[in-house]
Amino acid sequence: MSLVVQKYGGSSVADAASIKRVAERISLYAKAGHQVVVVVSAMGDTTDELIDLAEQITDAPPPRELDMLLTAGERISMAVLSMALNAVGVEARAYTGSQAGLITDGEHGRAHILKVTPGRVRSALEEGAVAIVAGFQGVSASTKDITTLGRGGSDTTAVALAAALEADVCEIYSDVDGVFTADPRIVPSARRVPLITCEEMLDMAANGAKILMVRSVEYARRYGVPLHVRSSYSGRLGTIVTDDPTRVVPVDPTVTIPAADVARRDAADPTKELPVDEHADPGLEAPIISGVAHDRSEGKITVVEVPDVPGRAALLFDVVADSGANIDMIVQNTSTTDDTVAISLTLPESDAPAALAAIEKAHEAIGYKEVRYNDQIGKVSLIGAGMKSHPGVSALLFRSLGEAGINIDMISTSEIRISVVTAQSDLEAAVRAIHTAFGLDAEQTEAVVYGGTGR
Amino acid sequence: MSLVVQKYGGSSVADAASIKRVAERISLYAKAGHQVVVVVSAMGDTTDELIDLAEQITDAPPPRELDMLLTAGERISMAVLSMALNAVGVEARAYTGSQAGLITDGEHGRAHILKVTPGRVRSALEEGAVAIVAGFQGVSASTKDITTLGRGGSDTTAVALAAALEADVCEIYSDVDGVFTADPRIVPSARRVPLITCEEMLDMAANGAKILMVRSVEYARRYGVPLHVRSSYSGRLGTIVTDDPTRVVPVDPTVTIPAADVARRDAADPTKELPVDEHADPGLEAPIISGVAHDRSEGKITVVEVPDVPGRAALLFDVVADSGANIDMIVQNTSTTDDTVAISLTLPESDAPAALAAIEKAHEAIGYKEVRYNDQIGKVSLIGAGMKSHPGVSALLFRSLGEAGINIDMISTSEIRISVVTAQSDLEAAVRAIHTAFGLDAEQTEAVVYGGTGR
Repeated sequence: MSLVVQKYGGSSVADAASIKRVAERISLYAKAGHQVVVVVSAMGDTTDELIDLAEQITDAPPPRELDMLLTAGERISMAVLSMALNAVGVEARAYTGSQAGLITDGEHGRAHILKVTPGRVRSALEEGAVAIVAGFQGVSASTKDITTLGRGGSDTTAVALAAALEADVCEIYSDVDGVFTADPRIVPSARRVPLITCEEMLDMAANGAKILMVRSVEYARRYGVPLHVRSSYSGRLGTIVTDDPTRVVPVDPTVTIPAADVARRDAADPTKELPVDEHADPGLEAPIISGVAHDRSEGKITVVEVPDVPGRAALLFDVVADSGANIDMIVQNTSTTDDTVAISLTLPESDAPAALAAIEKAHEAIGYKEVRYNDQIGKVSLIGAGMKSHPGVSALLFRSLGEAGINIDMISTSEIRISVVTAQSDLEAAVRAIHTAFGLDAEQTEAVVYGGTGR
Repeated sequence: MSLVVQKYGGSSVADAASIKRVAERISLYAKAGHQVVVVVSAMGDTTDELIDLAEQITDAPPPRELDMLLTAGERISMAVLSMALNAVGVEARAYTGSQAGLITDGEHGRAHILKVTPGRVRSALEEGAVAIVAGFQGVSASTKDITTLGRGGSDTTAVALAAALEADVCEIYSDVDGVFTADPRIVPSARRVPLITCEEMLDMAANGAKILMVRSVEYARRYGVPLHVRSSYSGRLGTIVTDDPTRVVPVDPTVTIPAADVARRDAADPTKELPVDEHADPGLEAPIISGVAHDRSEGKITVVEVPDVPGRAALLFDVVADSGANIDMIVQNTSTTDDTVAISLTLPESDAPAALAAIEKAHEAIGYKEVRYNDQIGKVSLIGAGMKSHPGVSALLFRSLGEAGINIDMISTSEIRISVVTAQSDLEAAVRAIHTAFGLDAEQTEAVVYGGTGR
């Protein structure tokens, strides 16, 4: 018997038919004797509809009241899902975030979890019931007001409950089959990554892969919760996110597989062993490429002719940070003709207006000549372990982009990632070029060398 | 400064525009210095839509989960109304039933209030904020699960909070201008009743007047809470329901009027004194007719040829009561030809299937010949104080129906009420005939004698 936490996103519970299908899936686990905790998002577009309603009333809803409003969405989905489970003969009980013990600080709209006290959830499990928990929401420890964790908060709810309950796995269900070597809409030959480390997953998430929020992966890494990212439609194996591949995780109501072995299974049939030679070990020291992530959601601010005087650049970054913007990449170029530099930085487009206003306000203090803003940029990132010690990786990446005629605007690297900024119009071609160059395309034989499945 | 509890029904908060209008009304009270607690129902058809959703999932939703689902409706309306108030510069905070201290038993779907501990509501008021409370819902004292009070439960929430907070008045807002001498859709000349006792209101409610639920009136009577039933659209004076007409109730943000004086005011302008002679005192002992109520929602079961043996009729009523049916009227006729009786009883149509099945099951024990069921009946009730001591009242009622050619099927009377059952096709004509006979029509001069306004 395993304890499994499952999280279903809004698209998995969009209507009555979807909810019944999800209930059938949950019932397989329950009837196989597993203890199941289900975290559920609001149905389909409910949250957006509630936000629309609030916007019809006021441009500036008080955050406390907005949280109260939005939490109605999960209240509906969790109650209906619980009904659907009871209707197929599985005892289930729905709990709000507050009832499930999700205790947060008082930051409405982006509350942080302070502690998880899932006493009622545990009682339900001990009594043989499935516990359905509203995602995305909690209760403030200090004010007892209802809070929300922000968009994507349901993943965090699921991981936090899995950690508190010491679950064997936290399954994150959506409408895609897991983490892919690139977005299949851009690279049709992209392949599912069966196993990935938390750090690689974090870099994928931070660089545009939308399948998991950074925050939930960080939580999972900190508490050692294995994640299984998979589709609620196909029932196939998805992607196991864990730093401990020796750990045995339940991947199916009747089957448990060591995480590392997941990579050796046929995605269509988790119980079928693959021929060993199809996954020949590429050598322990070979760089292992997990995939190619991309992101269209950032813009680039360029501040031209900043005096090359100590403190001016720091002041610029202070000003931007104080505006609440999350700076991603930074490039500084010294001008060849005078004592000024040009500083470029990328940041989420939604942060740009405040950042630009703040820079404008500090015009005199910084002493720059001009500010430019470009939202037509794209960022493509290659992610995988052991990159930094393999200079051939970045060389291959730059060569592949050059051969595809794609201009590189900015570059940033980390231990396990290389990101480049291109024109947004070049982004898809860049993703495809890199995906092919690193042998990630499904039909390529060199996939074994760099392939995401070659673990 | 008064403490006013206001309750707004679903039609008053059906959309963003309605909610803004309600917020404007509340703000008048708040800005005039009154303390305001607002109890709100779900927006428009939200509750029905949630029930539809549940029905798409299962025929038999677990009551606990259904309550969880339905309470999402008020959660939405209270949060949005609170936003609307804050948007017009009135600080407001929304509270769920649980947060507002509505502690109930564990009877899901029809929970009873055990106690009201409105500590957070009181704190909000003391801090100068308007407290918005979700109607219809509470929390079980024993299980901590969310409960609902049943349809019309928002009125009960409002009255219970008014009692616990010792409010000066509990205003019940809907889309009609108060209690009328008859349903204005049937009797266009029906008049608003400015002042009515709790007992009369109870009889009006129990006999088909839909403006208030019996339960909330009983609660108001027990705790001496004056009710003011009025329209959220017109802003006019409505109907004050109280047993203490010396009590001064706030009826407008700036005006308070002794309850008895309400009857003496122009409905369109509560501050304008009416000429005294228009409301000449009809004499303390004259019967005072409040109005004519009607009800189409009952059916009639007739059990034919029940042996006239002690205990058989009692057994019949036991069987029906055990089926969960609420019996309203009973008539027993001794047959002239043999030793059997025919027993007719009326009950809510929704209770009929279970009652008929129970009677069928007890066929042998009761020993009757046949059961008939008729759902095409109507009940018309004349309500007013001091009827029983005025035999002329019932004589006038029967005569008016006879002259209108309407057959009387069953009769029941109480201290302040006469009810007759007619064919449903005769019901509207019966309401009009009685309304006219008792001088309730607006243009009739004898209205002064029996008129609902003649207090």
